[in-house]
Amino acid sequence: MRVVDIIAKKRDGVELANEEIGFVVEGYTKGEIPDYQMAALLMAIYLNKMSTQETVDLTMAMAASGDRFDLSQISGIKVDKHSTGGVGDKTTMIIAPIVASLGVPVAKMSGRGLGFTGGTVDKLESFPGIDLKPNMETFISNVNRIGASVIAQSGEIAPADKKIYALRDVIGTVGNISLIASSIMSKKIASGADKIVLDVKVGSGAFMQTLEDARVLAKAMTDIGNHLGIKTIALLTNMDEPLGNAIGNILEVKESIEVLSGEGPEDLIEMCVLLASYMVMLGRNSESYAEIEKEVRAQIRDGIALKKLKEMIEAQGGDASLVDHPEHFKVAGLTSDVVAEREGYIATMKTNDIGKAAMLLGAGREKKEDEIDPTAGIVMRRKIGDFVKVGETLATLHTNREDKRKEAMDIILDSVEIRQEKATKKPLVLDKIL
Amino acid sequence: MRVVDIIAKKRDGVELANEEIGFVVEGYTKGEIPDYQMAALLMAIYLNKMSTQETVDLTMAMAASGDRFDLSQISGIKVDKHSTGGVGDKTTMIIAPIVASLGVPVAKMSGRGLGFTGGTVDKLESFPGIDLKPNMETFISNVNRIGASVIAQSGEIAPADKKIYALRDVIGTVGNISLIASSIMSKKIASGADKIVLDVKVGSGAFMQTLEDARVLAKAMTDIGNHLGIKTIALLTNMDEPLGNAIGNILEVKESIEVLSGEGPEDLIEMCVLLASYMVMLGRNSESYAEIEKEVRAQIRDGIALKKLKEMIEAQGGDASLVDHPEHFKVAGLTSDVVAEREGYIATMKTNDIGKAAMLLGAGREKKEDEIDPTAGIVMRRKIGDFVKVGETLATLHTNREDKRKEAMDIILDSVEIRQEKATKKPLVLDKIL
Repeated sequence: MRVVDIIAKKRDGVELANEEIGFVVEGYTKGEIPDYQMAALLMAIYLNKMSTQETVDLTMAMAASGDRFDLSQISGIKVDKHSTGGVGDKTTMIIAPIVASLGVPVAKMSGRGLGFTGGTVDKLESFPGIDLKPNMETFISNVNRIGASVIAQSGEIAPADKKIYALRDVIGTVGNISLIASSIMSKKIASGADKIVLDVKVGSGAFMQTLEDARVLAKAMTDIGNHLGIKTIALLTNMDEPLGNAIGNILEVKESIEVLSGEGPEDLIEMCVLLASYMVMLGRNSESYAEIEKEVRAQIRDGIALKKLKEMIEAQGGDASLVDHPEHFKVAGLTSDVVAEREGYIATMKTNDIGKAAMLLGAGREKKEDEIDPTAGIVMRRKIGDFVKVGETLATLHTNREDKRKEAMDIILDSVEIRQEKATKKPLVLDKIL
Repeated sequence: MRVVDIIAKKRDGVELANEEIGFVVEGYTKGEIPDYQMAALLMAIYLNKMSTQETVDLTMAMAASGDRFDLSQISGIKVDKHSTGGVGDKTTMIIAPIVASLGVPVAKMSGRGLGFTGGTVDKLESFPGIDLKPNMETFISNVNRIGASVIAQSGEIAPADKKIYALRDVIGTVGNISLIASSIMSKKIASGADKIVLDVKVGSGAFMQTLEDARVLAKAMTDIGNHLGIKTIALLTNMDEPLGNAIGNILEVKESIEVLSGEGPEDLIEMCVLLASYMVMLGRNSESYAEIEKEVRAQIRDGIALKKLKEMIEAQGGDASLVDHPEHFKVAGLTSDVVAEREGYIATMKTNDIGKAAMLLGAGREKKEDEIDPTAGIVMRRKIGDFVKVGETLATLHTNREDKRKEAMDIILDSVEIRQEKATKKPLVLDKIL
């Protein structure tokens, strides 16, 4: 097999065979195929698209490029959840203890990642002493004992995807559905899940800006999973504004504790109930969503899920007393309110810009080497549909970077659109692929 | 400007601006833009195509990437000729003295090149003592004095094209019309010609296998030239069999001398008369092809063009006595006849395969480092339409590589198709873009 022939085949719109895709992915990961040939092939794939079978083959080839985690020592059906990412998305910390408390094991590999705020791993590091890099034995034993554990994703999961993604980023081939879907699914599959619940975000704070695009991506991902015998469902959810109010690591941990304590913002509660219920449904092979949803709400109401969170943190060596005393978390040196300059209803938000403002304040990483300030971030005080008067607070900034406050404030003022007529709020769940 | 944005623009089918194309070509040539970004852009160009304006801009950017030769010190209109290459194409050696003898200056930069046989420079090196790397002053003074001179192309002409072509070759993006056309034209334009006659070959021995494809390429090239104010015409000519009979450096030189002596194969004579006449027409700003064609034939008939060839060679220090005594040229150690194994009419030839056989015998370079055997090659003894009996000679091989004779012979036997019915021979000129 010659790479140039494989490139020419895809260039001419011919479907690639499994062996050809495997040859390219393996050769590229090993450094035997140079970046420039992979770049040409990726552009040909971008423009000529991939069939479902090709996408499945690519996914498997990337999943096979590194370690595949064997979770067979964990009893029960392991259900993973993946969100395509958004601003203020802290659901993993809330859902894992809920689902675990209902008897469905959660063995969660999670990343740090670039972006507006840290990943779940960064957020959990807010608990001093927590070990997020246990060996596999300890991780598995924690899941078997407690029901849930989070482990930092090592560099060995789907290295092909990592290398291909880095290339796609600099050659303008990120936005192809097959490439996006296979990138996400290869990591999920290598992580060893039996079933997967996908949360595909749609809107101004999401990678997919329209419902139509999001549907196509969700379909591509569920197709891959289901082709491979890994039952996969997708929920398409609204991300026209930050999820919940808090954006930033410790701020989000505190909000997560609130939700598990039966408080917290409505949209975040509903999102967590939804995702947890579907995970439990899949984990139990059950069809009765309504029943399970009641159970999920009860675990929150009765404090059982909160107790489970403490167990999780303790089992990994973290200081769980903070769950009962969130006022002991570190706080940022400076807080500033962003106040409304005109009266009216919040109509839209440029959610990604709000995320950028949080990053500016120190909450996220722009480059891999950047350090996150766990105390930094933004707490939104108004959501879409709320009424606000001049001088009332729209959001509160938390930061240690005095020099960035003004810029962040301006971004937020520019991001929040205020109108005279009340906007109709979109529902949280826009569509489901079950 | 960011390369990734330029790639994305082309990916989305948007026309690139002149500055964007210039930025990419310059950055890539300097090594500031990596191969992988160029590879992605080239695949996007391949699949989404380029407009005439983009193609012109690309051509100029590549022409500007190295030296541009200033031929203004040569009096008169400098007309260049370019052939897209074929098997047995030795027209430059014949045309240059004809055109020069009619008062139109020929300042010819010529390459060595890879391929079945050497380039014009390799062929002229058959004359011992010839200097094909004079400085520009000497070159220009030779053209002013004699009317014609050939100089070996230095590495400085359109280095961007050289680098881009090498990349295209390994990423499956050779066959795009805009990329082919701009590659050829960038070198012509950097070479300083005022007007250009293109000889676009069509058929089994050409890059373009069909007349339709060749027309598109010819149109793209003439568009580029004419857009840039460099009057460019194209002749689409048949390359279903080798041009003339000789393939190989000294063998072709000898055949060229034959033509200038009023002998030689009919097809080669007609091709040279055609190209020389158009060059003179352009050089004189004349419209009267028929008149000029008569003059061209007279220069051959009266031995004036042959005399001019000798002057050219002498002026560059070569041994011109060989023109009068071609029997003094070096010859290959071995000659072998390939004889027909069946009776009938020659119907078709796999011309490129015949070229490969010549290369195998030592006539060409596969890699840049390879040395050419100037004596090696093939002389065809039958052309399409000829009748042949069993045991009659189809071609004669000339080589110093005894071990390759059998293979070359088999290739030729396989390349020459013999049928019972006489084939209709295609005309030499298939179309013109004037």
